[in-house]
Amino acid sequence: MSSAVDANVKLSRLLLLAHKFNNFYLNGFQKGDIRPFLVEGQQVGLIKSDVIKQLNKYPEVFCIRDCEYTKQGIVELNPAFRDYSERTEKLDKVLRELRSKGIFSALQGWREEYYEVKAEHNSLLKMDRSATPLFGVRKYGVDINGYVKHPTQGLCIWLQQRSNTKETWPGKWDNMVGGGLSVGYGIKETAIKEAAEEASIPSDLVKNLVSAGCVSFFFESEQGLFPNTEYVFDLELPLDFVPHNADGEVQAFELLPAKECIERVFTPDFKTTSCPVVIDFLIRHGIITPENEFWFTQIIELLHVPLQSLYTYKQRLDECKKQLQLQSQPSTDQQQSIDKLVTNNKIIENGHNKPATEAN
Amino acid sequence: MSSAVDANVKLSRLLLLAHKFNNFYLNGFQKGDIRPFLVEGQQVGLIKSDVIKQLNKYPEVFCIRDCEYTKQGIVELNPAFRDYSERTEKLDKVLRELRSKGIFSALQGWREEYYEVKAEHNSLLKMDRSATPLFGVRKYGVDINGYVKHPTQGLCIWLQQRSNTKETWPGKWDNMVGGGLSVGYGIKETAIKEAAEEASIPSDLVKNLVSAGCVSFFFESEQGLFPNTEYVFDLELPLDFVPHNADGEVQAFELLPAKECIERVFTPDFKTTSCPVVIDFLIRHGIITPENEFWFTQIIELLHVPLQSLYTYKQRLDECKKQLQLQSQPSTDQQQSIDKLVTNNKIIENGHNKPATEAN
Repeated sequence: MSSAVDANVKLSRLLLLAHKFNNFYLNGFQKGDIRPFLVEGQQVGLIKSDVIKQLNKYPEVFCIRDCEYTKQGIVELNPAFRDYSERTEKLDKVLRELRSKGIFSALQGWREEYYEVKAEHNSLLKMDRSATPLFGVRKYGVDINGYVKHPTQGLCIWLQQRSNTKETWPGKWDNMVGGGLSVGYGIKETAIKEAAEEASIPSDLVKNLVSAGCVSFFFESEQGLFPNTEYVFDLELPLDFVPHNADGEVQAFELLPAKECIERVFTPDFKTTSCPVVIDFLIRHGIITPENEFWFTQIIELLHVPLQSLYTYKQRLDECKKQLQLQSQPSTDQQQSIDKLVTNNKIIENGHNKPATEAN
Repeated sequence: MSSAVDANVKLSRLLLLAHKFNNFYLNGFQKGDIRPFLVEGQQVGLIKSDVIKQLNKYPEVFCIRDCEYTKQGIVELNPAFRDYSERTEKLDKVLRELRSKGIFSALQGWREEYYEVKAEHNSLLKMDRSATPLFGVRKYGVDINGYVKHPTQGLCIWLQQRSNTKETWPGKWDNMVGGGLSVGYGIKETAIKEAAEEASIPSDLVKNLVSAGCVSFFFESEQGLFPNTEYVFDLELPLDFVPHNADGEVQAFELLPAKECIERVFTPDFKTTSCPVVIDFLIRHGIITPENEFWFTQIIELLHVPLQSLYTYKQRLDECKKQLQLQSQPSTDQQQSIDKLVTNNKIIENGHNKPATEAN
């Protein structure tokens, strides 16, 4: 029987790891206890029910309701907030209160460092970096694979060990250089800045940086949701170069032959959310191949999960409205009346409503 | 208004091209006129309604019905067929008849060359290569990016122009070397074989072949569905090497600087289903970057669409059965009775039924 054969095909360690850093993509969605988070009608996040329960206590900031068109449950930042700074300020106040109550472990890592929340490159507000996992906001970072072509050991990779004092993943092994995108810095610019701060890579070496794509995955931990995209860069280094840390965020660097690097990635000492970058590097450089990895195509798909198509509430809403319009074909005036009617009758779950001037 | 900003963000030529070779992934699914194609309980394809209409005339070969558990419409190859050769023979007979009737243009390109239809590396039957688009069977191929590091022109890429006599995409520009996986050949082995046949690459050069991952996309044309995965290899070639064809399938080779290569890919003279391999190469080698391509992350996701999770009818069925079992918690004997009962009462759309011995 074919099913017996399937059961005998053992999942490889690499596939299991790809499942681990995509635990939310593969399991969380099915459970269905998440809602889109909307700011100015655009979906910027996904929020789980445990977080919604707390946000429900702030009806002046969050509107938690079912969409009148898509019938889907949504969480909306009060659309009456006028601009970027008002949205930022109102959200920040709630987050600081939640932090002081000690409800979410994510907020115990408060950074006093803001993350820009955007919809298609358009900044809508900023929130403390520690809070993004609660709202399932997509995070973007850069990573540099520092490597050496060793005459006897072949392809070798530089890894860093994170400082024990770091807020996240202290003491874990990680890519040679990595960091989140910050306000005002470009992608390559961030990579160059981090290369100098984390590994003291001089400018005559960093000029060899090669952009090599990105990885995307959707991880969940006790801290919340991590729908992450990492822009990856490769940097070939001379045999005699040794990185050393300049900002106190790294406690060690180690050069490992590719095969040993794979083994390191499988240990619990490696930062889970940095594994995709290493695996992608080893695939692009012919170390992990379809001949030595049975689940090659599955793993590559799990290094590029479609995050950009999971935040499409606005498109679904537009589609619903279009369908409704096609069915009834009313004049523009009639459609506006329908819009108004539906808006006024919408199901309000936490007593919050749009002001009348915004509803039309 | 943010929506006005969105509308102003013009889709780039690259993103439009990624939409083009994923036209079925992005649009076809929503229309919902497709059904899983099952062989031995495993999903091996997706069939559109125009094809189902024809298969419906062969109730002794295809069972077209709604699944009793998932409630989804399915097309099943008669489960009474005993083995690989009987399944192959019965399907082949239908395909030859459909071909003689001239109903499907895909079958006008009949190859007398078989393609292995597998479920998780397990061969279930073989069908003529020309027929796979009608059944939405996933196809796997290999592609070699032949490139040169030119002292003045930088990264240059060898392209081939397909012979005007080829059955598919005659006269179109294509990757230097490419071909479908054939029965009995491994992935790298196929790449080496094709490199010799298509471009006369000698063994001392082909030994530098580097496995670099795969691309996956879901294209639809008048011929049918193309859920394709291409294993990609990079091959750096010496400046003075010029490929020449040995099997009559190529009419020209041309070496193009990377920038000109991008322009060629945008022309209608380039084989649509080969574009993903070129784009992936240009991304991995730092030519297309997040700085020069606004839709960088979207494009990379569209080079790796989750084909491996679109053919999961069996997993959904198992999940449904598990849910049903959890709800009722009957003993094993009772469950077998339920299975039998449900099977006997299933909705038959074309009068075909499983023989009683197979149903239990």
